Amino acid sequence: MDKLVECVPNFSEGRHPEVVRQILEAIDSVRGVKLLDSSSDASHNRSVVTFAGAPETVRQAAFQAAARAAELIDMEQHHGAHPRIGATDVIPFVPIGETTMEECIALARQLGAEIGERLQIPVYLYEAAATRPERRSLPAVRQGEYEGLKEAILLPGRQPDFGPARMHPTAGATAVGARPPLIAYNINLDTGDVAIAKAIAKTIRGSGGGFPSIKALGVLIEDRGLAQVTINVCNFQDVSLVRVFAAVRDEAARHGVAIADSEIVGLVPAAALPEAAVSCLQLAGFKPEQVLEQRI
Amino acid sequence: MDKLVECVPNFSEGRHPEVVRQILEAIDSVRGVKLLDSSSDASHNRSVVTFAGAPETVRQAAFQAAARAAELIDMEQHHGAHPRIGATDVIPFVPIGETTMEECIALARQLGAEIGERLQIPVYLYEAAATRPERRSLPAVRQGEYEGLKEAILLPGRQPDFGPARMHPTAGATAVGARPPLIAYNINLDTGDVAIAKAIAKTIRGSGGGFPSIKALGVLIEDRGLAQVTINVCNFQDVSLVRVFAAVRDEAARHGVAIADSEIVGLVPAAALPEAAVSCLQLAGFKPEQVLEQRI
Repeated sequence: MDKLVECVPNFSEGRHPEVVRQILEAIDSVRGVKLLDSSSDASHNRSVVTFAGAPETVRQAAFQAAARAAELIDMEQHHGAHPRIGATDVIPFVPIGETTMEECIALARQLGAEIGERLQIPVYLYEAAATRPERRSLPAVRQGEYEGLKEAILLPGRQPDFGPARMHPTAGATAVGARPPLIAYNINLDTGDVAIAKAIAKTIRGSGGGFPSIKALGVLIEDRGLAQVTINVCNFQDVSLVRVFAAVRDEAARHGVAIADSEIVGLVPAAALPEAAVSCLQLAGFKPEQVLEQRI
Repeated sequence: MDKLVECVPNFSEGRHPEVVRQILEAIDSVRGVKLLDSSSDASHNRSVVTFAGAPETVRQAAFQAAARAAELIDMEQHHGAHPRIGATDVIPFVPIGETTMEECIALARQLGAEIGERLQIPVYLYEAAATRPERRSLPAVRQGEYEGLKEAILLPGRQPDFGPARMHPTAGATAVGARPPLIAYNINLDTGDVAIAKAIAKTIRGSGGGFPSIKALGVLIEDRGLAQVTINVCNFQDVSLVRVFAAVRDEAARHGVAIADSEIVGLVPAAALPEAAVSCLQLAGFKPEQVLEQRI
């Protein structure tokens, strides 16, 4: 398998499809990049785009998108429910296939330098690409949001990693980083009692003392009348889908409830699936290199 | 994912590494083809080679290999335990990724015509590429083997699909076909009683009234002291690994025996693994297009 990188930039525009279309065109103009998904949310006033390709082409496409967003989006006019610091709010690079996290960190630093110098937008490196421990957390980088960061950027602890130490007058600032693939995974319980789903979510999530790389909430799926544990698996190599499933199944059993079914929302990296097969089939000694397509 | 084809030709030479090396070089000389495996068996006096690539390049490499084998192997001197009809005994094409069985059947027919005309070797199309129902079975095509086919080839029912209706004087004949990927899958029982493994194998295999696309034997794994059901899953889309596992587990339970573990020998197509994940995680509505790498 070739070297591949996924990129999931978030833009502070979710109400004008024409603006989003122009940003998508900027990405699509780079040969070799494949657009995988785009979704806009009006109440968040935000769009999330997913694309992938060879590392260099993905970096070029991310720059083109950030440049176009800086032309089209005026943060002075922006209001929305989701925290944000700039027109291109955040650009994470995600390793796929044989690509390593180190390669994505290098990409993030190259892109950060380019955005800082050529677009004169301050850039903060975050998560795996962070240069300071406190910047691994995206909420910490975003503290004060666009409006508050105008002053806070002058403080020694908030100076950007690249670009000018002042906000861009309309595009604000951008967080650029590297992170593992995120899997959106929902487990439906055979009960309509959302309190049970909430209790299970609290037990398994990092903020409740559970798995550090798991985020989870309990919600009610009204059309099915089922309680759901809705989960972000932020690092499936730390905690596999099978382990999450087993943890929820065991917690649900303590409440006398069975699992109805589960679902993966959107895309899942191929590497997350063999591990489930290994567990289900009690496979001994299985190696990812045994997957035929990995060898070609 | 690109169009890919796997090819697993079998050559009637397993005792002279130098001969096998020259055949491998003929395959490797075609740009874009990737050699994945080669294994030779002296008692069978036979070598099995696995390679893959884009359909056209794989067809070219298969032709080069058959031409080299015809130069180097003299069937008049060949003895071995495995049934065979020619220097290149059999050439199956296997669809991978987005390639369809129909495309592999077309490849088999093109290659058959080429081997028949350019090498003057009679070719029988078999399995999914067969032109007559009785030729879907490879043992039926091989009936009489190299020695017996010299006369039988003159009979109306045994005339080849391509090439002369007489055996090549040293290279014999070749079977060319298309088939689904085969998965070699072993399930180890928590017992040393090989009679139980034999009884289970008989129940699940096609020839015993079980799954038509499953071949199975019961054997003893001496170093572990465990009885094993050793299985060929000949069409994992008909019968998944999970279904085979469950059938063996249920049969074993009737004998009061548990499964120790299982193993996949060699390569497995990526498409065989999500199904196991779906079963293990009770995944609802999962589609192969959700696998990120499939989208790029």
